[in-house]
Amino acid sequence: MKNIVDVLNEKIKEMKSPIVVGLDPVIGEIPNCYKEKYKNEADKFKAIGEILFDFNKDIIDAVYNIVPAVKPQNAFYEMYGSEGVKAFERTIKYAKSKGLIVIDDAKRNDIGNTGAVYAKGHLGTVDIGNNEEATAFNADFLTVSPYLGGDSLDPFVDECIKHNKGVFILVKTSNPSSGDIQDRVTESGEKIYEVVAKYIAKQTEKFETESGYCPIGAVVGATYPEQATELRKIMPKNIFLVPGYGAQGATAKDICNAFNEDGLGAVVNSSRGIIFAYKKKYDKETCTREQYMETVKVATELMKNDIVNALIAENKKI
Amino acid sequence: MKNIVDVLNEKIKEMKSPIVVGLDPVIGEIPNCYKEKYKNEADKFKAIGEILFDFNKDIIDAVYNIVPAVKPQNAFYEMYGSEGVKAFERTIKYAKSKGLIVIDDAKRNDIGNTGAVYAKGHLGTVDIGNNEEATAFNADFLTVSPYLGGDSLDPFVDECIKHNKGVFILVKTSNPSSGDIQDRVTESGEKIYEVVAKYIAKQTEKFETESGYCPIGAVVGATYPEQATELRKIMPKNIFLVPGYGAQGATAKDICNAFNEDGLGAVVNSSRGIIFAYKKKYDKETCTREQYMETVKVATELMKNDIVNALIAENKKI
Repeated sequence: MKNIVDVLNEKIKEMKSPIVVGLDPVIGEIPNCYKEKYKNEADKFKAIGEILFDFNKDIIDAVYNIVPAVKPQNAFYEMYGSEGVKAFERTIKYAKSKGLIVIDDAKRNDIGNTGAVYAKGHLGTVDIGNNEEATAFNADFLTVSPYLGGDSLDPFVDECIKHNKGVFILVKTSNPSSGDIQDRVTESGEKIYEVVAKYIAKQTEKFETESGYCPIGAVVGATYPEQATELRKIMPKNIFLVPGYGAQGATAKDICNAFNEDGLGAVVNSSRGIIFAYKKKYDKETCTREQYMETVKVATELMKNDIVNALIAENKKI
Repeated sequence: MKNIVDVLNEKIKEMKSPIVVGLDPVIGEIPNCYKEKYKNEADKFKAIGEILFDFNKDIIDAVYNIVPAVKPQNAFYEMYGSEGVKAFERTIKYAKSKGLIVIDDAKRNDIGNTGAVYAKGHLGTVDIGNNEEATAFNADFLTVSPYLGGDSLDPFVDECIKHNKGVFILVKTSNPSSGDIQDRVTESGEKIYEVVAKYIAKQTEKFETESGYCPIGAVVGATYPEQATELRKIMPKNIFLVPGYGAQGATAKDICNAFNEDGLGAVVNSSRGIIFAYKKKYDKETCTREQYMETVKVATELMKNDIVNALIAENKKI
């Protein structure tokens, strides 16, 4: 079986598209056309779960042949409890059925045995009794937080090896305060984000892939282009998940530093800039599903071309 | 309304019990008597959700008048997808109905707006459309990860102020590799865990409580008693959630350092040592619900007495 990182790289090359569409639905911003059908549902959380899924389904249908991957952000589903989580599960399943790679953005972790439980639930298989196992979320990649140290990260790597999955470990995040901990310089002269980056780089030894890339990746915010250059050197063969394009202010040029000379090594995410692009053209009240989907498609194409053009200008053609 | 930290401290004093029972159910270790009823359920995840809830309900019934709080560990529910999360929701609701304080151990966080979404879902209220809000998990406390920095933690503090809730931010965790990041000494001479501790100590200014304690607390592993002493000094008025007693090897004496002279300031968690204590006396196949509950009660009483005796010996009587 092809390693998931090779599948991702092939799709990126075929589509000429290192783009990830973030599925971060916000009920108050979803066009009314998605809500009509469920207006008489007494269980409001159930109704919202159905709306989130229908909304995502249209986004997926609009982008599945333009981008290699989608990234549902867990918080926006979990906020509605189990009904929201059901919409999260259905979204992952539907995206995979359309051939998309799914990055489960949940930033999970815990110590020892408990971290392993998250890894099994999100990426692997879980014990359902009588020596049987089943998949729960079955995502392709999961985002993981490193504060608890190496023995909390190892079980995620093990699960990736066992089930041909990948992770993106938080290294240098895109938010203004990311430096509070991540940029601290330690006595050895390393910054904290370098400590995490070195752990990730080391995992490359455990995988043999066709493209030479490693499915243990890093989250590197587009808002910090200088750090991206530095981190690219520490982790030459790990995939970067790059948030921060568009709504958070990073430009396509900023993002190029996250890529290698072969035009690979990174995927760039945009969420609000794509899934709420419709607001520039239509009203929430009157926008139809067809109109909505068209705006998603156009915004995704524009982003893709913007990133690819910037890569060409930097001689990093895919 | 009394601040949640005052409610917690009053319960601790009334019950003479700074103990938290961790609800970390593992399907393969639950006595068969909980499984019989659901053996014909075709949806295995639904069956497991029902079993986890029944199992927790008995634990809660056994301990609600001995301890002030329970701590369901989210990973053990989420691993079964939305059906597992439904059991998590039901467990929180049932525990609160019995007067227990609920610590939602999910170690969540994300940047800016998304962190706020987790805070609303776990502790506050969420938008359900038409200008209406509803609660999702409605826990009393949530555990939170600090790697993303101050602007990721602030929304949790805001939600605590708004809804009279609390958080425990990871400072020094109980696992062997916790030092990989947390113990790193920065150029300023501070360790990373001290950087986080100082953020937490500063939040005390934002709360006025009867007991003087602050509901923005810290996770401080019992396995690191020296660091607990140091952290107690940096955060004199923040509550510590102390994992690592029992199964992870810390003794009652080790744990005393996490407490102040008034015998307050910390709650000690045990999960496996209580909920799977039955194994010392009974077989999984034949243990009845009544026998199971009795072992939970006895193990909790033993732990409570062990901790309280150690506190008395250290002159830290509650």
